[in-house]
Amino acid sequence: MSVNFANIRIVLVETSHPGNIGSACRAMKNMCLHELYLVAPKNFPDPEGKSKAMAASARDVLADIKIVETLDEALADCIFVVGASARLRSIPWPVIDPRQCVEQLAAMAEAGKVALIFGREDRGLTNEELERCNALVHIPGNPDYNSLNIAAAVQVLAYEINMFSYLQSGAEKPIDEFYDHPRATAAEVEGLYGHFESTLTKLGFHDPANPRQLMRRLRRLFNRAGLDKMEVNILRGILTAAETGGKNTANSD
Amino acid sequence: MSVNFANIRIVLVETSHPGNIGSACRAMKNMCLHELYLVAPKNFPDPEGKSKAMAASARDVLADIKIVETLDEALADCIFVVGASARLRSIPWPVIDPRQCVEQLAAMAEAGKVALIFGREDRGLTNEELERCNALVHIPGNPDYNSLNIAAAVQVLAYEINMFSYLQSGAEKPIDEFYDHPRATAAEVEGLYGHFESTLTKLGFHDPANPRQLMRRLRRLFNRAGLDKMEVNILRGILTAAETGGKNTANSD
Repeated sequence: MSVNFANIRIVLVETSHPGNIGSACRAMKNMCLHELYLVAPKNFPDPEGKSKAMAASARDVLADIKIVETLDEALADCIFVVGASARLRSIPWPVIDPRQCVEQLAAMAEAGKVALIFGREDRGLTNEELERCNALVHIPGNPDYNSLNIAAAVQVLAYEINMFSYLQSGAEKPIDEFYDHPRATAAEVEGLYGHFESTLTKLGFHDPANPRQLMRRLRRLFNRAGLDKMEVNILRGILTAAETGGKNTANSD
Repeated sequence: MSVNFANIRIVLVETSHPGNIGSACRAMKNMCLHELYLVAPKNFPDPEGKSKAMAASARDVLADIKIVETLDEALADCIFVVGASARLRSIPWPVIDPRQCVEQLAAMAEAGKVALIFGREDRGLTNEELERCNALVHIPGNPDYNSLNIAAAVQVLAYEINMFSYLQSGAEKPIDEFYDHPRATAAEVEGLYGHFESTLTKLGFHDPANPRQLMRRLRRLFNRAGLDKMEVNILRGILTAAETGGKNTANSD
């Protein structure tokens, strides 16, 4: 199942900063979303063009924005509504995490329009607005600093929607790695690459004046594999042995 | 297993806009990350204070930034390095998705410092920088518009790290819903709530002058359940029956 992106509407309620509206457009377009409703925005359209600047090339999303006066107008044809809220309420409302949210949104978007609504920069959504929602989504975060920018919240949930679609298309998981020695540090690995380059140059196998892809291919091989400290030592031992013709270089492993 | 957040370093290479540095700080703090390295930033520290403005209350992350001249300095003590790149290269490097990335970062962060590096706003990471990486992470998105803002990319991956930790702590999945009729629209559901309110007022069960939590509790119940069109019709039939004492209101279901 791929996601019916066209049935997913983003709704921003009484947004104050037009830059956030533009950033939301850019976040949406990057993640294949297009439909943006603004409920009674405070400073939009903005003659200063901050929304346009932050939208970057997502001008089409910006141009197609629908401005409405009430949340009811933005939701009237929607069959499923999720509110994004950082705050807990006096009466607990059903709260889901972003991945549950996206599973439900994607399933419901097969049947009709769904909406994801975001509140004001300073006060979020009111109780009356939250009561329009079938569920509230909470983006897990720092319990001591819960202050996600509204465009960042749009970005995270839009990303989750796209990621859901991507994973449905069949992504592979890599095999778990196993190491019986501590991993080498980046400095140790760079030392190895320097050693390779000097040894292979001395051996006439590598020509720094005409390097082709040799060092890049070696880097790709060993970085993909991921080296532990022992392996770095072994490889450097081999290089020293190659340089000196095998004198005084026995491998002690 | 909870994530060892203190071992995860974010590295921004030659960032041009200090506002993006501030936004990255805010994104990081929201997701429990703290360690930010800047490699040769173009306009930082910025006397205009854009970084401070965008960092909002993440001043501590901003204050603890380490500025270095080379990527090698930023990575020297790291045992695992992932590069964020939107571009494909002449030689394919191992590419993982954000969820695979975070699994690997979290596992490696148990053993030592790990780094997640982000390139320039306009040109990303160079081939030489990508070659420092054990893997590249690609954030899936719109194939026709791949233009994620750098702070948005930091936000997405920082969110995935925190989400991984959150899910490890044991989140529950909701039961799948099943409907044999089309879902009701928001307008239909609002019509039902209006009907409830007027009927219950007429019946003396509800006092609009002293509403307490009655309507809110009814909304929560039915929104949590999610109503289909048939259920709305049934409930409105019941309300009409209650109002009229049962005259001419037989349920036709």
